[in-house]
Amino acid sequence: MRIEYRQIGTIHTPFKSIEGMPIQPAGGEFVPGTVEVYSEYLEGLKDLDGFSHIILIYHFHKVAESKMIVTPFMDDQPRGVFATRAPKRPNPIGISVVRLLEIEGSTLKVENVDILDGTPLIDIKPYVPDFDQYPADRVGWLEHAKERVKGKKSDSRFR
Amino acid sequence: MRIEYRQIGTIHTPFKSIEGMPIQPAGGEFVPGTVEVYSEYLEGLKDLDGFSHIILIYHFHKVAESKMIVTPFMDDQPRGVFATRAPKRPNPIGISVVRLLEIEGSTLKVENVDILDGTPLIDIKPYVPDFDQYPADRVGWLEHAKERVKGKKSDSRFR
Repeated sequence: MRIEYRQIGTIHTPFKSIEGMPIQPAGGEFVPGTVEVYSEYLEGLKDLDGFSHIILIYHFHKVAESKMIVTPFMDDQPRGVFATRAPKRPNPIGISVVRLLEIEGSTLKVENVDILDGTPLIDIKPYVPDFDQYPADRVGWLEHAKERVKGKKSDSRFR
Repeated sequence: MRIEYRQIGTIHTPFKSIEGMPIQPAGGEFVPGTVEVYSEYLEGLKDLDGFSHIILIYHFHKVAESKMIVTPFMDDQPRGVFATRAPKRPNPIGISVVRLLEIEGSTLKVENVDILDGTPLIDIKPYVPDFDQYPADRVGWLEHAKERVKGKKSDSRFR
């Protein structure tokens, strides 16, 4: 089945190139960004301002190919792509939880972004701890790597 | 920008119709399901078995239209669609965190599903508390509604 989505807006961030980007929102703390939602979807933003955090779903538009095995930024071992958050996936779709600071018209001011400037937005969902937080007790290869994420920047590996 | 994704597998669950489905994974606790990943993506599942929870990204294939304003299952007030998890979105994309019990070949046994049987799979990501858990202090209209989610079932509203 082929699935067709449309860009519903654009994410703007300080990250103009993939090099030097934080790897996950945890590494992008306090980094400000804006989300410009196309005016035809403005009505859908009603009530969103009641949420402190939102989930952005977006298209890794700079990723040209997919790979089944990747070596993540945070590791030096090759891993199955579905066991990583790497962008070179069969469907290059990304998700990030960001803090929502303010909505002005169809512009969302957000914080804690780990996203490339100009990234096409696909969806916005409210972040709800009751739906989105689970007591994960095993995080695989990340067990030892995750402590190194904060402050870690990406390199050209995923261009 | 038009974005094209491909189905990479199928999600099987006990929910053969939208009526009677749990509304969020929190309401689908212990409900078992399987994820059949197409064999061409088998290699990408390497290392995934180290994670206790995974994020399934999927296409709401039974949703025919999108609406900017919806009345969520958990509420009786109309809300902007982006302030809800309702399926009638501009891009009908769903995300759920499920517990991963076992992987056999390209079949994932999971638990805690709130997904319709036969749903096309778009992506799998590891669930990592450090990336996916945020101290959300405001959950908007859900503040009072969320306590009612457990045990709440869907109706025909989103057909």
